[in-house]
Amino acid sequence: MKAIGSATAIRDLEVLREAHPLVHNITNFVVMNNTANALLAIGASPIMAHAVEEVEDLISIADALVINIGTLDPQWVESMLLAGKAAAEKGIPIVLDPVGAGATSYRTQTALEITARCKPTVIRGNASEIMALCHSAIKTRGVDSTADSKTALEAAKQLAAQMKSVVVTSGSTDYITDGSTVLTVKNGNPLMTQVTGLGCTASSICGAFSASVSDALRACASAMAVMGICGEIAAEKSDGPGTLQLHFLDALYHLDKRAIEMRYET
Amino acid sequence: MKAIGSATAIRDLEVLREAHPLVHNITNFVVMNNTANALLAIGASPIMAHAVEEVEDLISIADALVINIGTLDPQWVESMLLAGKAAAEKGIPIVLDPVGAGATSYRTQTALEITARCKPTVIRGNASEIMALCHSAIKTRGVDSTADSKTALEAAKQLAAQMKSVVVTSGSTDYITDGSTVLTVKNGNPLMTQVTGLGCTASSICGAFSASVSDALRACASAMAVMGICGEIAAEKSDGPGTLQLHFLDALYHLDKRAIEMRYET
Amino acid sequence: MKAIGSATAIRDLEVLREAHPLVHNITNFVVMNNTANALLAIGASPIMAHAVEEVEDLISIADALVINIGTLDPQWVESMLLAGKAAAEKGIPIVLDPVGAGATSYRTQTALEITARCKPTVIRGNASEIMALCHSAIKTRGVDSTADSKTALEAAKQLAAQMKSVVVTSGSTDYITDGSTVLTVKNGNPLMTQVTGLGCTASSICGAFSASVSDALRACASAMAVMGICGEIAAEKSDGPGTLQLHFLDALYHLDKRAIEMRYET
Repeated sequence: MKAIGSATAIRDLEVLREAHPLVHNITNFVVMNNTANALLAIGASPIMAHAVEEVEDLISIADALVINIGTLDPQWVESMLLAGKAAAEKGIPIVLDPVGAGATSYRTQTALEITARCKPTVIRGNASEIMALCHSAIKTRGVDSTADSKTALEAAKQLAAQMKSVVVTSGSTDYITDGSTVLTVKNGNPLMTQVTGLGCTASSICGAFSASVSDALRACASAMAVMGICGEIAAEKSDGPGTLQLHFLDALYHLDKRAIEMRYET
Repeated sequence: MKAIGSATAIRDLEVLREAHPLVHNITNFVVMNNTANALLAIGASPIMAHAVEEVEDLISIADALVINIGTLDPQWVESMLLAGKAAAEKGIPIVLDPVGAGATSYRTQTALEITARCKPTVIRGNASEIMALCHSAIKTRGVDSTADSKTALEAAKQLAAQMKSVVVTSGSTDYITDGSTVLTVKNGNPLMTQVTGLGCTASSICGAFSASVSDALRACASAMAVMGICGEIAAEKSDGPGTLQLHFLDALYHLDKRAIEMRYET
Repeated sequence: MKAIGSATAIRDLEVLREAHPLVHNITNFVVMNNTANALLAIGASPIMAHAVEEVEDLISIADALVINIGTLDPQWVESMLLAGKAAAEKGIPIVLDPVGAGATSYRTQTALEITARCKPTVIRGNASEIMALCHSAIKTRGVDSTADSKTALEAAKQLAAQMKSVVVTSGSTDYITDGSTVLTVKNGNPLMTQVTGLGCTASSICGAFSASVSDALRACASAMAVMGICGEIAAEKSDGPGTLQLHFLDALYHLDKRAIEMRYET
């Protein structure tokens, strides 16, 4: 397992801020505000829109698409699939956040359908979501029924290889893999898990980096390093998970070379 | 009228944090983020989901259901009724927040329909919502047309007795009643009324306590004491209603025995 | 070009707080929470609701309607048109925020349809939205195909004259025009552009002032002065765009004569 190093994260952040990518999000109601603010703060430009009447037009101007199924329903899933198809045809990065995969079969099946039809560049979830997706994907193909006993990292590698996606598994250490190479990011703070939607923010930040840096594996490692470092900065300034939310946005906005160099963990 | 005392609130909070209950919310767009964060901060685990395709599956893993009609429409009401039916069958607590009952007949009728069909364990609203619900409930049954002149407390007691629910009426003093016993909670700060959705948060916190403590009357009194105490702590740290929101979440996260003992008012 | 002066802004704010207007918002998912909190903080009373089953009932008790197409879809547009028709018949001010007009034809056409059918009292957008609306409005009527080369101010004046609306174009200087008179507001801080939805907040604050002060041109100039001044106050207290959001709400809540006098720029 490898790490990208602080110099790569710094360079990728510079490229992102230069590129100012337009990131189209079809995401859940809980996190829309935070996600849009996080994208603005890091230097990207957010679009939040879901009508089938316009998602294809928006993809035509977007640099990345982020699909998040947190508060999914059939109407929104229709838009996700339509936008995903358009994004795949245009060739821009697609990030899928399979929120709650494994909790209900509707979520698992929807995440798998989006994966199969839109071929996401990146799938980012927590360990249980990635394992649910991997095992269901395999089960529906009648392969490797012993996968359940494997760790999330093995599941992530299998899922990545099978889907030809980069799979990002968030946790106290983040694992980013394309199925063969595994990159790790160790930055972060436990208080981040007490704020709703920071995982969703991570997915959109992965979208912004993937839109700017052509190597999606590296782009996601830079994105997760930025998330973790800003989480640390915010946690030091915060009295709890409430204030952490906004200090986190401030940290994204001010993040610079020096802070990354000082804090990057290998 | 009685009060539960600080020792009960402390014990119930400990029980909640031990139980770490899963609270399924079908709530409005305005408060979803705050509600999810408040549940996390107090030690519960939030689910925010509304698709008819999955609400029954989610109820099968949930410890409580909170239905909030703040931004209702027919599709969401369908999900509320479906989830409510499943929750009633499973026997987990159901909290109804009849936001805006009395403002439009659609809201009043929807709140009454949910009440009639789902038999909520708890109904939490402000005085005018509780009165609207009580008077309409009675009017539609052709009973007690003089109820209009009674106070919210009388309405709350009638509604509680008729629906066999605990009714929580929020205000400078909170009244919690099952129709015979009335518990009061005097903690709180007026600045809380200047933040949108703290009432909605209160409903979800009532759900988290009701999921953990079997006596719903007492559970709601503990919930409202916790809300009021955290509101006081947050108000002391805040310059206005904006910053109050996040200090409130921090206060929920850090709330301990000592703060409850010091601040609990009888 | 003229300015209203600090005394007018102070008087209008007093009138608003006295009137405590009920502002009905049919707005986007991203900003609902912030918008409701901003209306509360300035002294108005927010309603956020969209069901066709109740929007007409709500208009019957509302003092202004704000329509914001940020996350539009056909169901919501139906509600916007229904509410807009009811508001026009009742004669209360209607504010349209044509979020993203010009980005997709669905947005532009929807904004134009709402404009044509509901006759908004106020249209508030950024320069590109106002220009998109003006040029499309003109194009669809076959008029002035050279308008593209004109500045946003010329577009705003044309749009205002043609629609008999007050048009507010936000920017480092805000321009408020009825097609002949142009008022300017110079207050504000660049950090405001790094927070999602402060433009949407401005539209709702224009709604609150228009509900309270009969001259909509002046009402909007007062609203934009209040926005700009509170943005300045908040920026001075903030470390970045995250904390700015909440200090902004605190500033709205505490805004008084002295702060307006000190900070009003001409």
